[in-house]
Amino acid sequence: MIKELITKANTIGVISHINPDADNLGSLTALSTSLRLLGKDVKSICIDTIPYNLQFLHDVGKLTSNYDMDLDMLFILDCSSVDRLGHASSLIERTDIVINIDHHISNNIEADYSIVEVAASSTGEVLYKFLKEINLPIDVNVAESLFTAISGDSGSFRYDTVTSETFTIASELLDLGVNNKKINNNLYAMNKIAKVQMLGLAIDRLKIIPQKKLGITYILIDDFEELGAADADVEGIVEYIRDIDDIEIAILLRQNSAGFKASTRSKENYDVSELSLKFGGGGHIRAAGFSIKDLNLEETIEEILKRI
Amino acid sequence: MIKELITKANTIGVISHINPDADNLGSLTALSTSLRLLGKDVKSICIDTIPYNLQFLHDVGKLTSNYDMDLDMLFILDCSSVDRLGHASSLIERTDIVINIDHHISNNIEADYSIVEVAASSTGEVLYKFLKEINLPIDVNVAESLFTAISGDSGSFRYDTVTSETFTIASELLDLGVNNKKINNNLYAMNKIAKVQMLGLAIDRLKIIPQKKLGITYILIDDFEELGAADADVEGIVEYIRDIDDIEIAILLRQNSAGFKASTRSKENYDVSELSLKFGGGGHIRAAGFSIKDLNLEETIEEILKRI
Repeated sequence: MIKELITKANTIGVISHINPDADNLGSLTALSTSLRLLGKDVKSICIDTIPYNLQFLHDVGKLTSNYDMDLDMLFILDCSSVDRLGHASSLIERTDIVINIDHHISNNIEADYSIVEVAASSTGEVLYKFLKEINLPIDVNVAESLFTAISGDSGSFRYDTVTSETFTIASELLDLGVNNKKINNNLYAMNKIAKVQMLGLAIDRLKIIPQKKLGITYILIDDFEELGAADADVEGIVEYIRDIDDIEIAILLRQNSAGFKASTRSKENYDVSELSLKFGGGGHIRAAGFSIKDLNLEETIEEILKRI
Repeated sequence: MIKELITKANTIGVISHINPDADNLGSLTALSTSLRLLGKDVKSICIDTIPYNLQFLHDVGKLTSNYDMDLDMLFILDCSSVDRLGHASSLIERTDIVINIDHHISNNIEADYSIVEVAASSTGEVLYKFLKEINLPIDVNVAESLFTAISGDSGSFRYDTVTSETFTIASELLDLGVNNKKINNNLYAMNKIAKVQMLGLAIDRLKIIPQKKLGITYILIDDFEELGAADADVEGIVEYIRDIDDIEIAILLRQNSAGFKASTRSKENYDVSELSLKFGGGGHIRAAGFSIKDLNLEETIEEILKRI
């Protein structure tokens, strides 16, 4: 059914979410390339900055931030809700056939066709199976984009969502000629020096509270200027703290003009979403976040510790 | 042929190298368990400390440091040369049938049977194929040990040695019931705080020389006492520096009583073994090491920079 609709469509849009990551842009370029191999006029829409370590993806130069267009069909990839598309979400109403491919349990997009596999490691994994099932072309460029998506969203095959099927898919993609060295270099060996220094700073300031199995650290507004760092350079810090032995709860406080934003992670037992709710925040059992206003650093830490 | 010899043997030794890692101990426990399932009297010999994050391996409690024994057969796993076995290497002369299973290109052990696949990601990968080929038992415990070996020596499926076959094997191991969450927690989420702080210190002291695409840092003798750190806590630092964007050559200087020991890594173009040779050291194109005596830190760095 979907295959027929694709066959009939001429102009097909594929859209990424804001703050796009490897799974999102990998899936987007994979599907775009596959549809171009079919002879379709593909519009690959990315309204946000493309991370510097994903610039290597095939046909990344064809991404456009223009979304004022008429499409026969629109694919939304790796995006759990309409607001993650920003202004470009208007395309959903403008397009007759909307197809939603994702793996987020929270996916609530109302599309004509939704293929959401919450047990999958990544949208890349769902997309690979979709492409195979309806027999769309998968050349080496499609395969490299899919491998990037899967590796990126599974922490290089380490997260709980990785199954024997994930490994089978990775194997099939390598057989298609994927250069995994190139992909791994881009995903894992291009850490910006500012990001490395930000981690160094966070380790330096790390306070461990053994009786609560808690590690807490902070990043100040001034740090960004001093290190020449960007938002993305804070990524991975809270997970790094969680992965310390004997730590169950990791908290990263990030200063903003109103106070502090807390990112929290837990390893196995503590429900950080409960903590988050106490401060009016939200999230999941193992990853949640909240904001605290009008308190200084010491007071913020004290307030949090009281509630753990 | 080997299968027949195994069938005939009663007491079989399996030996690990000094400073054993995940591939070594994973392979050792995998083979030990498999042979025990066959009903053999298996002696699992480990003459060195078992890293705290590998204590979860099956039957790790059966490892012994006693090597004064008579065996019908001895397996040497993941060990490139006899001196890596320490005093326990005397077992080689004492045992009639010695089998050498490895993936190191430098393997020079003279055994009765050598199965050395230099293209394999890990000894775990070579061992899995060996077990399957001669139809030895692979239960979930054997599978978990093999998965640990393969994941550990491939940087969680990231190194260049990972092929589609590596992924196929990982998939087959998961199908046998491997709990990859448990293994990943042990391998990647049990960083000791001293190790984390050692990395923080190394980042703090990191000196980047852009025109040489070089990153150099150091660890002093006193750091170990101050952080309560052990040798193993320095592991990973030089690779972490290599993985910084725009860095081609990473150097970690480690102080000892005589001066400094340098660990070097390169990303893609520079041959660190050549640099190493200039100081009487050795190694490979991408990973090499050497020592410099009787110079202080500044002089040591100066001497190295002169030769790059």
